[in-house]
Amino acid sequence: MAQYAQRVSNMNSSAIREILKLASQPGMISFGGGFPAPELFPLEQVAEIAAQEVLNHGQQALQYSNTEGLNPLREKIVERMEKVYQIKGLTVDNIALLSGSQQGLDFMAKIFIDPGDVILTESPTYLGAVNAFNPYMPKFVEIAMDEDGMVMDDLREKLKQYPNAKFIYTIPDFQNPTGRTMSLERRKEMLEIVADYGVMILEDNPYGELRYEGEALPPIKAFDTQDKVVYLGSFSKVLAPGLRLAWVAATPELVRKWVVAKQSADLQCNTLSQYMINAYMDKFELSQHVEKIRNVYGARRELMIRNLETNMPEGVTWTHPKGGLFIWLTFPERVDATELLQKCLENKVAFVPGEPFFPHHTSKNNCRLNFSYVPEEKLIAGVAAMGATLKEYLKG
Amino acid sequence: MAQYAQRVSNMNSSAIREILKLASQPGMISFGGGFPAPELFPLEQVAEIAAQEVLNHGQQALQYSNTEGLNPLREKIVERMEKVYQIKGLTVDNIALLSGSQQGLDFMAKIFIDPGDVILTESPTYLGAVNAFNPYMPKFVEIAMDEDGMVMDDLREKLKQYPNAKFIYTIPDFQNPTGRTMSLERRKEMLEIVADYGVMILEDNPYGELRYEGEALPPIKAFDTQDKVVYLGSFSKVLAPGLRLAWVAATPELVRKWVVAKQSADLQCNTLSQYMINAYMDKFELSQHVEKIRNVYGARRELMIRNLETNMPEGVTWTHPKGGLFIWLTFPERVDATELLQKCLENKVAFVPGEPFFPHHTSKNNCRLNFSYVPEEKLIAGVAAMGATLKEYLKG
Repeated sequence: MAQYAQRVSNMNSSAIREILKLASQPGMISFGGGFPAPELFPLEQVAEIAAQEVLNHGQQALQYSNTEGLNPLREKIVERMEKVYQIKGLTVDNIALLSGSQQGLDFMAKIFIDPGDVILTESPTYLGAVNAFNPYMPKFVEIAMDEDGMVMDDLREKLKQYPNAKFIYTIPDFQNPTGRTMSLERRKEMLEIVADYGVMILEDNPYGELRYEGEALPPIKAFDTQDKVVYLGSFSKVLAPGLRLAWVAATPELVRKWVVAKQSADLQCNTLSQYMINAYMDKFELSQHVEKIRNVYGARRELMIRNLETNMPEGVTWTHPKGGLFIWLTFPERVDATELLQKCLENKVAFVPGEPFFPHHTSKNNCRLNFSYVPEEKLIAGVAAMGATLKEYLKG
Repeated sequence: MAQYAQRVSNMNSSAIREILKLASQPGMISFGGGFPAPELFPLEQVAEIAAQEVLNHGQQALQYSNTEGLNPLREKIVERMEKVYQIKGLTVDNIALLSGSQQGLDFMAKIFIDPGDVILTESPTYLGAVNAFNPYMPKFVEIAMDEDGMVMDDLREKLKQYPNAKFIYTIPDFQNPTGRTMSLERRKEMLEIVADYGVMILEDNPYGELRYEGEALPPIKAFDTQDKVVYLGSFSKVLAPGLRLAWVAATPELVRKWVVAKQSADLQCNTLSQYMINAYMDKFELSQHVEKIRNVYGARRELMIRNLETNMPEGVTWTHPKGGLFIWLTFPERVDATELLQKCLENKVAFVPGEPFFPHHTSKNNCRLNFSYVPEEKLIAGVAAMGATLKEYLKG
């Protein structure tokens, strides 16, 4: 066989996806994936719309379509970004559709990263982003976080050290994996800091609307007067991930690069998904559906935190996210969460160990718990099983 | 703004996609795209299935799913490859789903190509493949074609010259853009030739079932006893391109690399499309639908050839494809097909000039005509308009 390209040595299977395979075994309670609650999918509405779009517009909806995406849907995204997120002044030329935000992560690296170029990330950061960037062979530089998100003094320091860094990857709202939110002050400060550099900001915002307490903060993009921010939005968490539809918002010049990248990578997004989501937004009120999701996930977050409090042994701490899908646990130093996972799987409960969320794998005693997917009763049983397994582990 | 990666200088917008934008103007007759005839899409059946899959399996069909693809659909693909294409001995471990064959082209280069590595292609070759490979900065080496496809003596010669070539890209059946088919002898000879090298064969077969005369030839993959062939199949031309579903068939080892590439690029294919196509194949006979397509396209091919004969001035020649979607025209040497296109667009008819199908842009006097998309009356009018425009051009 022919030799693989060098980048293949840098391409690893996602720890999450592998765990999810195990976690799909019968009887397993999985806090592993970032899955929406499937019982909230609006099946009747989506079924109605799917049939209607195929019957009434099928000659277009099943055909090839343009790479940028369906115009009426891009218009709706522009409106929604203004109304929901206070990001003003965009037009359809600022928007290109993507087959999920993951594709946006791939394209950002494809467009900006030569081998050895620096990407700055939160520490820890979304492991799917690390996997998306890795084939382009970047150097990862991690920025410290605290409860208010990325620490700006550390960002300033690292930019001095790496002035030619290509971009900063951040999830300001309810970060994956920590659930932390970047404060308003830091969002503005970040833009001041980057003004002196060529560095871009890749703002990934899949969870922004899923806030269960406190007031919504505008995305960094809302304050971006210098065209520094490339913004990723998604329908995966507010409607349905199986439809694989997300978008990038950036300058028209950059969006054209995105479109060229998409032409060569997969030509276009699924046409029917575009027609369906466009029709859904015409016919129903997406924000009402999001409200329903917020209520359920907010209650599950409460329930998980209450059950962590009663089940976890001393020395375990966790974040208190104001939204999103994830809680981040820190175990006592001597716990190797990957070992713990093995034992938890025997006890039919799964999570994702924290290690692969650190680009340099520098910490072993964390894990990420998802609270959106598992219904209440199982959530209680799963946290209890985790607590019991951990207590056993600590004895060993 | 941050500097683009070096590969961006190698990423160009697809000539086809740009022409298709112009060609979508009202009144335009387009022989440009490789579009299926939308009036043949089985809308009632697809609408029924879409609604049924969302209602009955929506909690899975709208959710995240695994990267390899839905198991029952991969099983059906295995069966179909045996029954329709005589490719035996595959299991689901040989198959991974893709968001269109275009994604398979991207991944093949991502997995095998370091900058400067050699890709051997037919001359001309599919321009979407050139665009997919280009970001990985390969060196293209073109292999001569004749009416029986790639010329094996030239392949032998070029492999001697480039013994470390990574892969040969070929569309053996009804090639895009020429419509030519590789003879059975050459398919077998090709495998003998490559046995002495590490080089792989990327066999792209989107049109294989669309044969309008002569006997079906087994794909190269059917004779592949040395695991040299990576095979791409697709539902785009036999069902609907808007559902963006295709597959790769290769060794389990290579398929795992494909899956890792897909995880980082876009996580997974559209889940609903997978459920829909799986249900379609359960409930209806895909081969019957293909038969219907064959009858219509076969008649359109006849019609286009007859109308080329009556409308084209002397000195123009064209291929006589036994299937597929395309006819390849060669104009007199002095014709620049891109110039001719400008004039044709004024006269409301569009095609794709041949130049970008040659990786080194070595020929200007060809064009590709699609005969599947345009209904009969318009097809007649379009060829007449092209003929008249060309006669005018030759006078000028």
